[in-house]
Amino acid sequence: GVLGSGDFARSLAVRLVCSGFKVVVGSRNPKRKASLFPAAAEVTFQAEAVKKADVIFVAIFREHYSTLCDLADVLVGKILVDVSNNTEINHHKESNAEYLASLFPACTVVKGFNVISAWTLQSGARDGNKQVLICSNNQEAKRTVAEIAQVMGFTPVDMGCMSSACEIENIPLRLLPAWKIPIFLALGLFLCFFTYNLIRQVIHPYIREQKNKLYKIPIEVVNTTLPCVSYVMLSLVYLPGVLAACSQLYYGTKYRRFPDWLDQWLQHRKQIGLLSFFCAALHAVYSLCLPMRRSHRYLLIETAVKQAVEKKMAIWVEEEVWRMEIYISVGIIALGLLSLLAITSLPSIANSLNWREFSFIQ
Amino acid sequence: GVLGSGDFARSLAVRLVCSGFKVVVGSRNPKRKASLFPAAAEVTFQAEAVKKADVIFVAIFREHYSTLCDLADVLVGKILVDVSNNTEINHHKESNAEYLASLFPACTVVKGFNVISAWTLQSGARDGNKQVLICSNNQEAKRTVAEIAQVMGFTPVDMGCMSSACEIENIPLRLLPAWKIPIFLALGLFLCFFTYNLIRQVIHPYIREQKNKLYKIPIEVVNTTLPCVSYVMLSLVYLPGVLAACSQLYYGTKYRRFPDWLDQWLQHRKQIGLLSFFCAALHAVYSLCLPMRRSHRYLLIETAVKQAVEKKMAIWVEEEVWRMEIYISVGIIALGLLSLLAITSLPSIANSLNWREFSFIQ
Amino acid sequence: GVLGSGDFARSLAVRLVCSGFKVVVGSRNPKRKASLFPAAAEVTFQAEAVKKADVIFVAIFREHYSTLCDLADVLVGKILVDVSNNTEINHHKESNAEYLASLFPACTVVKGFNVISAWTLQSGARDGNKQVLICSNNQEAKRTVAEIAQVMGFTPVDMGCMSSACEIENIPLRLLPAWKIPIFLALGLFLCFFTYNLIRQVIHPYIREQKNKLYKIPIEVVNTTLPCVSYVMLSLVYLPGVLAACSQLYYGTKYRRFPDWLDQWLQHRKQIGLLSFFCAALHAVYSLCLPMRRSHRYLLIETAVKQAVEKKMAIWVEEEVWRMEIYISVGIIALGLLSLLAITSLPSIANSLNWREFSFIQ
Repeated sequence: GVLGSGDFARSLAVRLVCSGFKVVVGSRNPKRKASLFPAAAEVTFQAEAVKKADVIFVAIFREHYSTLCDLADVLVGKILVDVSNNTEINHHKESNAEYLASLFPACTVVKGFNVISAWTLQSGARDGNKQVLICSNNQEAKRTVAEIAQVMGFTPVDMGCMSSACEIENIPLRLLPAWKIPIFLALGLFLCFFTYNLIRQVIHPYIREQKNKLYKIPIEVVNTTLPCVSYVMLSLVYLPGVLAACSQLYYGTKYRRFPDWLDQWLQHRKQIGLLSFFCAALHAVYSLCLPMRRSHRYLLIETAVKQAVEKKMAIWVEEEVWRMEIYISVGIIALGLLSLLAITSLPSIANSLNWREFSFIQ
Repeated sequence: GVLGSGDFARSLAVRLVCSGFKVVVGSRNPKRKASLFPAAAEVTFQAEAVKKADVIFVAIFREHYSTLCDLADVLVGKILVDVSNNTEINHHKESNAEYLASLFPACTVVKGFNVISAWTLQSGARDGNKQVLICSNNQEAKRTVAEIAQVMGFTPVDMGCMSSACEIENIPLRLLPAWKIPIFLALGLFLCFFTYNLIRQVIHPYIREQKNKLYKIPIEVVNTTLPCVSYVMLSLVYLPGVLAACSQLYYGTKYRRFPDWLDQWLQHRKQIGLLSFFCAALHAVYSLCLPMRRSHRYLLIETAVKQAVEKKMAIWVEEEVWRMEIYISVGIIALGLLSLLAITSLPSIANSLNWREFSFIQ
Repeated sequence: GVLGSGDFARSLAVRLVCSGFKVVVGSRNPKRKASLFPAAAEVTFQAEAVKKADVIFVAIFREHYSTLCDLADVLVGKILVDVSNNTEINHHKESNAEYLASLFPACTVVKGFNVISAWTLQSGARDGNKQVLICSNNQEAKRTVAEIAQVMGFTPVDMGCMSSACEIENIPLRLLPAWKIPIFLALGLFLCFFTYNLIRQVIHPYIREQKNKLYKIPIEVVNTTLPCVSYVMLSLVYLPGVLAACSQLYYGTKYRRFPDWLDQWLQHRKQIGLLSFFCAALHAVYSLCLPMRRSHRYLLIETAVKQAVEKKMAIWVEEEVWRMEIYISVGIIALGLLSLLAITSLPSIANSLNWREFSFIQ
């Protein structure tokens, strides 16, 4: 059974029908809404629909849950599946599913399917192994809903009892939570080093020697800033592991929980590492662009003309030549190794490595 | 039961035996063929094999289906699994499975396993989550075959009733269907812009000033063409979304289907975007190669020598310097952002993002 | 039931409890160890735990298996799941699971879960579709354990009978086995070509003309070596396919097994191809870095000054210009095509292609 006639209710009915289930849709105005649903689904009044179904998907907004109270008698003993989402993280004190359970104590409430979009429901799970997170206080009801999800082509994931409902409802609302701290960290570091380099390369020569080097800001100053950020971020990837090892040695046990800040830090290593790689890659591209610039061309011609006029023939500072050759070749090797690390952090590749291989590459 | 003794029949038998099923193979010449099959599988005459099995995989070509008509009596009530493929899309009027069903109206026909190659069957499903698309008019038979597929380590996907058989049979024959239009579009745009740039940079100076600039064709003309193609393609990614929104506003409903051309266009956005990124990346590489060229070196030396001979000391056009610096730095940032988009379009990463995160990155 | 109180035993108990199972932990010192396990799990003496459970996870080291012999009476008829790993490949003559089965002939032994880390058990299977490889001589016991794995959120993969236990136990110990030969091959080729180029570009001019060109070693010599390695590797990708076809034509059958060396070679093609791409990409980056070098700058200025002093005006060797333009543009196109090949070898993309599409791209 499906209660509701919104986008999600319709997609759900379509998919259930396609998967071979008999579907009854309960609506306040079945005649007007019937055309929205597939022909194989029976559209009728809510009370009738509830009577005919054992598992009922409640596809209406939390605000309208109370309108179902008229159906309390016929709902007794049924399994209610709460598929709702919120518009804000932790919007309400208790999760939608817990609120529904408190309204209908005689029903078994299961939370699930809210992480699936209406679009995925309609288009099928063919492109991508979509997971349906499910939780309930009743093991049997949970298993029934998990089986329905499996027949529909999804992978049910058991999330334990009802207290996880809040967590499940927050999942579709989260916005790259693991990236927030690393990105702000990278931006902060960039700002610091950029200011330092700006003063050193542009403002200082201007004040001291009245030289206008403002043109260096968009590329050269950025280009000297990026590797600094990349280095510091890379060291921040390996530092917490060392701290964790020290902490374990100090306390003589590995069963003691790490302090919260260290735990958080350990969990953000992958993101910090990827941002470090991103900065290193940008630095490579910026460096490669250096000889393309007009300013590079002008400075080159200026030097050549000056030498020609002064009839000086050959400048060849062996030390400078070597420094540059080694600098570039070490840079390329470092970037190649970082690329390997970045590629192995792709989910589909990381999943195919065992623990020994992963730590070898690290 | 397995009917047939080709590559597919043998791989199927191997895999079924490995998954713990009792397998009977039906062949016209069991003695000669027995050595091809695993020892645990019984190889016997077709009629006997059919008698012993409830589920029979028909691993023979469509052209030979009619040879099974002798077995019609023993086949009554059995489940026939059609695993055949065609050599051309929509080769026959009705799908192989429907043809088989019409020949044996007393059997239940299920279409499936044709998207799996003999090689995948033998090597196991360990590397990659291989899906088996199944369809049938009989729910129970479909479920039986789905269970067999699951035990064999595949993920059965229910594709509904027999009318989907044609679609399932076409899947192994399709050749990147979603890429055809975007690639022809990109080639067409490239040709247009290439001709325009060729006339402007090579032919026009040749006719007007008799200057031979043919050497510009392989790199410089291509390099000015690529960003034009990339820009137009990128705008074609975002345009259909705007048109769709306008159409929804105009008709005042989101339940009205879009016209076919718009629907097609909306579905090709990802491919158009990736080609746009590919052109942008090529443009970046071409641009980086510019200072490596001999012609660049000759022009530079020529300018330097001219200035030295004329004793002009310093050329420094502030405007040109700034234009180049800003042009390059904006280009790098744009390429970095496009790279992010391209990375998130990898299936394994796209699957780990929720809708809100995906639209944020877009 | 879980026997043992190490990291793995604890993680296993946590996960089983979370998945809704009733868990009994058997320990030699239940009072001291109880605090390590989740509250919902009952921690008791080994004999008592075994009595209460039907499926028993043996999470202790192989060396201590014999200590369980006291429990032989209560273990009769139970399913024992061997989750152990070795520290070396093929360390013992018989696999741990077979050793356990020989100690307790009255029990049914199932091998499984050893490829899952304690960390994955605790964090859940949400990030990544983790597979649990299972084998046993008893089909029913295998199915029971497979169902437990499925409820825990893993994907059970049937690996056949007990003789596969050794293979399963070696999986967590393997270290990129498919990469070993290709990497040594690439290193060997690199060394050969590097030596040749070193003699040709550095040692020969030094001996003949006393010119010190040592500065060319880190970049120029490496850069001329990389494409040679890349070309030879690429040809080694396509050669075995040709040899295999010839062998099939010669013997007139495709059912004859290839000789071992050819079979091995055929299986390493993907890795050889990726290393070829890696060398080609490095060559591209090295080449792009050439104009950034000090030596390039010095040589350029030297030429300009020489010309200016000698009042020679224009050098423009049409042939050299064209050769460089075509060389660069063909290189970029080749790299673009190799990139496409490399991208399609990512597991998540390769899985979404059918056979026809894959061979088209190849």
